[in-house]
Amino acid sequence: MLNDTAAPALGVGMVGYAFMGAAHSQGWRTVGRVFDLPLSPAMRAVCGRDPAAVREAAVRLGWAAAETDWRSLLARDDVQLVDICTPGASHAEIAIAALDAGKHVLCEKPLANSVAEAEAMADAARRARDRGQRAMVGFNYRRTPALALARHMVREGRIGTLRHVRVTYLQDWLVDPEFPLAWRLQRDQAGSGALGDLGAHAIDLAQHLAGEALTGVSAQTETFVRERPLPGGKDGTGGAAGAAYGTVTVDDAAVFNGRLASGALASFEVSRVAAGRKNALCVELNGTLGSLSFDLERLNELHFHDQTQDAAEAGFRRIQVTEENHPYLEAWWPPGHGLGYEHTFVHQARDLLHAIADDTDPSPSFEDGLRVQRVLAAVEESAAKNCVYTPVLN
Amino acid sequence: MLNDTAAPALGVGMVGYAFMGAAHSQGWRTVGRVFDLPLSPAMRAVCGRDPAAVREAAVRLGWAAAETDWRSLLARDDVQLVDICTPGASHAEIAIAALDAGKHVLCEKPLANSVAEAEAMADAARRARDRGQRAMVGFNYRRTPALALARHMVREGRIGTLRHVRVTYLQDWLVDPEFPLAWRLQRDQAGSGALGDLGAHAIDLAQHLAGEALTGVSAQTETFVRERPLPGGKDGTGGAAGAAYGTVTVDDAAVFNGRLASGALASFEVSRVAAGRKNALCVELNGTLGSLSFDLERLNELHFHDQTQDAAEAGFRRIQVTEENHPYLEAWWPPGHGLGYEHTFVHQARDLLHAIADDTDPSPSFEDGLRVQRVLAAVEESAAKNCVYTPVLN
Amino acid sequence: MLNDTAAPALGVGMVGYAFMGAAHSQGWRTVGRVFDLPLSPAMRAVCGRDPAAVREAAVRLGWAAAETDWRSLLARDDVQLVDICTPGASHAEIAIAALDAGKHVLCEKPLANSVAEAEAMADAARRARDRGQRAMVGFNYRRTPALALARHMVREGRIGTLRHVRVTYLQDWLVDPEFPLAWRLQRDQAGSGALGDLGAHAIDLAQHLAGEALTGVSAQTETFVRERPLPGGKDGTGGAAGAAYGTVTVDDAAVFNGRLASGALASFEVSRVAAGRKNALCVELNGTLGSLSFDLERLNELHFHDQTQDAAEAGFRRIQVTEENHPYLEAWWPPGHGLGYEHTFVHQARDLLHAIADDTDPSPSFEDGLRVQRVLAAVEESAAKNCVYTPVLN
Amino acid sequence: MLNDTAAPALGVGMVGYAFMGAAHSQGWRTVGRVFDLPLSPAMRAVCGRDPAAVREAAVRLGWAAAETDWRSLLARDDVQLVDICTPGASHAEIAIAALDAGKHVLCEKPLANSVAEAEAMADAARRARDRGQRAMVGFNYRRTPALALARHMVREGRIGTLRHVRVTYLQDWLVDPEFPLAWRLQRDQAGSGALGDLGAHAIDLAQHLAGEALTGVSAQTETFVRERPLPGGKDGTGGAAGAAYGTVTVDDAAVFNGRLASGALASFEVSRVAAGRKNALCVELNGTLGSLSFDLERLNELHFHDQTQDAAEAGFRRIQVTEENHPYLEAWWPPGHGLGYEHTFVHQARDLLHAIADDTDPSPSFEDGLRVQRVLAAVEESAAKNCVYTPVLN
Repeated sequence: MLNDTAAPALGVGMVGYAFMGAAHSQGWRTVGRVFDLPLSPAMRAVCGRDPAAVREAAVRLGWAAAETDWRSLLARDDVQLVDICTPGASHAEIAIAALDAGKHVLCEKPLANSVAEAEAMADAARRARDRGQRAMVGFNYRRTPALALARHMVREGRIGTLRHVRVTYLQDWLVDPEFPLAWRLQRDQAGSGALGDLGAHAIDLAQHLAGEALTGVSAQTETFVRERPLPGGKDGTGGAAGAAYGTVTVDDAAVFNGRLASGALASFEVSRVAAGRKNALCVELNGTLGSLSFDLERLNELHFHDQTQDAAEAGFRRIQVTEENHPYLEAWWPPGHGLGYEHTFVHQARDLLHAIADDTDPSPSFEDGLRVQRVLAAVEESAAKNCVYTPVLN
Repeated sequence: MLNDTAAPALGVGMVGYAFMGAAHSQGWRTVGRVFDLPLSPAMRAVCGRDPAAVREAAVRLGWAAAETDWRSLLARDDVQLVDICTPGASHAEIAIAALDAGKHVLCEKPLANSVAEAEAMADAARRARDRGQRAMVGFNYRRTPALALARHMVREGRIGTLRHVRVTYLQDWLVDPEFPLAWRLQRDQAGSGALGDLGAHAIDLAQHLAGEALTGVSAQTETFVRERPLPGGKDGTGGAAGAAYGTVTVDDAAVFNGRLASGALASFEVSRVAAGRKNALCVELNGTLGSLSFDLERLNELHFHDQTQDAAEAGFRRIQVTEENHPYLEAWWPPGHGLGYEHTFVHQARDLLHAIADDTDPSPSFEDGLRVQRVLAAVEESAAKNCVYTPVLN
Repeated sequence: MLNDTAAPALGVGMVGYAFMGAAHSQGWRTVGRVFDLPLSPAMRAVCGRDPAAVREAAVRLGWAAAETDWRSLLARDDVQLVDICTPGASHAEIAIAALDAGKHVLCEKPLANSVAEAEAMADAARRARDRGQRAMVGFNYRRTPALALARHMVREGRIGTLRHVRVTYLQDWLVDPEFPLAWRLQRDQAGSGALGDLGAHAIDLAQHLAGEALTGVSAQTETFVRERPLPGGKDGTGGAAGAAYGTVTVDDAAVFNGRLASGALASFEVSRVAAGRKNALCVELNGTLGSLSFDLERLNELHFHDQTQDAAEAGFRRIQVTEENHPYLEAWWPPGHGLGYEHTFVHQARDLLHAIADDTDPSPSFEDGLRVQRVLAAVEESAAKNCVYTPVLN
Repeated sequence: MLNDTAAPALGVGMVGYAFMGAAHSQGWRTVGRVFDLPLSPAMRAVCGRDPAAVREAAVRLGWAAAETDWRSLLARDDVQLVDICTPGASHAEIAIAALDAGKHVLCEKPLANSVAEAEAMADAARRARDRGQRAMVGFNYRRTPALALARHMVREGRIGTLRHVRVTYLQDWLVDPEFPLAWRLQRDQAGSGALGDLGAHAIDLAQHLAGEALTGVSAQTETFVRERPLPGGKDGTGGAAGAAYGTVTVDDAAVFNGRLASGALASFEVSRVAAGRKNALCVELNGTLGSLSFDLERLNELHFHDQTQDAAEAGFRRIQVTEENHPYLEAWWPPGHGLGYEHTFVHQARDLLHAIADDTDPSPSFEDGLRVQRVLAAVEESAAKNCVYTPVLN
């Protein structure tokens, strides 16, 4: 058999193998097949608590081995990078242990379930960096080519001074009141609801695209459906038939506004009860020289309005971000042959491998994740305090 | 010559003849040509301070006479309805005088520049109603056929229990910092900026479409460009050439969230500095059974998602609101032959004439205008008080 | 009463008062209210065969008098311009008589039901032109601001050498097989079906926007529903109940391709049985330097792709054709406040009045109408001859 | 290491490793990671003429070995399926040899460069079928989930009797006259130009979605740019500097119409010079009960109009084809998380493996490919014969 590649291998171990684990696996499997890489990821082992299920996942997703204890995964010499795809409640413990064990770390978003955890993680990452380790948080949407192009255009000054950033992230899987009380609806596991899940992306993108931090927020959150059936259905108590219900302890939706450091206004709305909106992450930036607009449901497109053009010919221009010189596109297909959601994970893997090889800090870093966490905390504080404008402590 | 129509005439007098005056005139001229009416509007006189200009406007817009003092207009026996198209600062005085003079009144939005004025106007309207007079405020967008259909569908229960209403109204004519300090940028004349101009529409539509009132808001407002050239240009002081600048005393933009009586969340964003957005009034309502979405830049379309359909075939449906059985469409063109902005003024005229003939209260009434004014006041209060959630007093 | 305007009056008489008559009336009523005109149209009389109905139409539509014989209308000294809004079968006779009677003529499209008729009309127009009379055919869509802008951009060379023009015009009102056998479905009155009604617009726009003529076509036509209920319903013969049916003698749809003089390819599809397409006139031009795209269902927008831009930032740009310096827009509303279908008739009236006042030939002329007629004839000839490429005789 | 899967292996060998080879490789690599399969594809060897390049491709794309002679590939015992990704000129020879050698075959589209070749291939496939071998042609777009859903809906009768099918497939990579004379522009290698490349997809989709064959066509083709620089640039003759030019022997564009067996009208337009259109494959079907519309540039969406709904609420519905019960979606991500172009190759691999395991005929078969080839030939014949309607021999 042919040697797989000239690039030295980097052993990867992944914790968790549900939705995010499958998406990350697709990233690790594919990245070396399309991009030129300085390090070749070797998918050494995946880890989960259920021995049969994790073994089946390993076979399915392409991992060479299965582990049932993440500490064992961290103990493996053939693993240099730990990819954490578990619910938020376990991020801090695993990530800090992995960093302390000398591993590079990729951690799914949100970084943690609390600012305290996120601070501990960022501290651990700082210490590890001095030892040459890298830590990245998985705000994968930054690596949608259209949003990478948007960031590039903002940095180049194409929209001038920012006035507004506007992010809505709407889904509808909780419209049905009989949708069960899954882990994402429980505060002890998920930290928060739409806020931490969707709002974390929204906040990260706003700060990343604008290139500046939120300095404060005013917020409302709401849980419209407060009781939901417990997963597993009927209560089985022998009494009257019927599902057992439990209390939803996270938000269904959050609306909040804020300010960026420059004084630009930021507005956010996230919801899991917006009927008909499946994964509608819409971002718009308005500046003095132009505007940019994006909708994740049409992720290969970026809309750009150039305010410096003659008004008689100006208008939002639908850029199909599929040209060879667009971000990440040198590796893919000819113009107009669009990419999908999962490609963001391939790009994330690519950029992390480069950062490790180049000894540079990956972006988004744990610091970036912490910054998002602080905004999330300010949102919840404002919502609890009658919407009062709440500074984000940085 | 043929008799113009069997319907008895109703004399109309209009105050103001700028943008709104031209649009209202188009409404009065056209309404009897397309709709069956119980009363035939007779365009008796238009009023403005500049004698030559108002005379020219009368000829141009189709008014039989010109007046230079609104009190004279009110004194005319042949005028039964006074249509007020002046800046907000003069609404209260003229409207109250007109009502007290026994006239029906149509008043442009926002109803007034303060809650106190609006209350006095609503009081006057209440007293006048007992005498058989009608008072309407010109929230013309309610009469876009697509939004009239949306209201109908909400009332019929098609979207179920409301969870979210979301309104953005974005324009960009103030992006240019050299745009002059027109009356719309001066608090004493305009009351507020984007808030009163665009936000008033946004608030009225949210309350109207939802069929319920906002109970409180949390808000930020901003003036990005604080000095602008005085209209008329050079200062003429004999010193160095250069424009004289004055201070902008209203907001360029406002972002605010609120609650409706039912507990649904409402979010709003209005701006005059959103580059590339010309007249982008976007409205979305999400309920437990469906969603509705509208964009004024494509005003003949209403998008409806029916959550009760099989998810495999569901999606936002682009209803072209041009069918004969759609609101107001019996009077217009075959399916697919779209209407424009100005048609809302024809519809407004039609509905007011019916209300007068039928002795019913027109909608939106001065009470509705007052309700909007109270929200505007709460927005400004919240913005001044660190965004704290501020109840709307009703 | 104020003098209506300083501009001298031009008496207008209209024949026909159905859909087109109503639309033209809106044009005549409105044009002087928004545009500065060299001649002021005076709506002298409308003509139709049913005395009561035409009288009612006169009142409704704003005509000063009603006539029941078009020859009487032509005999009126106070009528200088005859506007023909009847079915195609009567265009030639009325138009030629009007021209011979010394009147200016505006004739609805298609110009005629046959090339012979159209030639006679063009001859009459030529003779009349020598006497200072003007003749125009009502291809109103040329005067949609977006398409007027498109023509301007093509003429300025913004799309370079044309490669493709593509026009589809789809409606769906004949999907229902029980839709009755109206005059538009009878060859002796309508000339042809979707072809003459929709195809005439499509052909005129292709030639007008490209600025060159079609030199030949290859075509198919089809009548999917060949028997339809006679208007008026039940047959009343005393026999078994049931509608009487008649034979549809025109096409439901036509598909055809052609060549422009420059060698560019042209493709056309018109149909009245395209379910869900209400008035979907879509036009696209592709050239070596750019492309233009338009959809009548969103008539305030023109989409322009500039091929000379860096591919990384290029894309179809949605120009909202509502800026003050866009064609016809100086008369209307601020940016983003869209126009509707009927405004094309206002613009048509404006341009014809200018042509009459300036002693210039209006566009589209009867020659232009004849050119379209020749293409329609070539389409029918090709369809009858096994699609063979059929030259357009010019 | 874990056993890769319980499913028996099926050895795959691929010929060609350019654009299509890379896309097919992505399909083979991924299919077993997301779908449950009856056979597990083993990527045994890739074949190409340049030893170094094919070796590099093997490493990059994940093939275990490299071959430089396709006959050697066919001779390998560990290869049971041959995947042909070469230009059309070599399809017939390789495919027939592979079938005769007892291999299953997947062949890129168009099936061949002539009807004679395609007939020989279909014959070979028929013979091989009797020996239990399967042959499939790579019309991958059938496996876009949205188009698979469209086919399902047509079959279920959701659009009733078909009236129109309309397919345009537009690209713009040949707008630039200096784009070189690549193999796709040479008749001896590519067979035809936009016609065979894009038109083949368009024809296959029309026939597949409609579920019936084209019975005849009328066509025009055109080569706008007839000389192009030879690949490799300067001519090197020692004379004056300057590129050598060669003659383009295929079409840049083709427009053609046809009939389906049911009498429905079909229209087609394909071009490589449609500025701004990158990969714009647009398909629409209009039937008596509804319509379907699709655009490859937004490939996760299918638009459906249900003509049986009340017209007041009807309209094209944007179905996001990302629900778990949509075709192929059980394997992918949650609703709204869209797929890309390359996923069609994963689905193609899946369906072929099932067909092999189930001993059923894959679709599209070589017969289907032959049917498309016959239409392509009829198009060229009609274009050569003055567009005369040319029957498709079946």
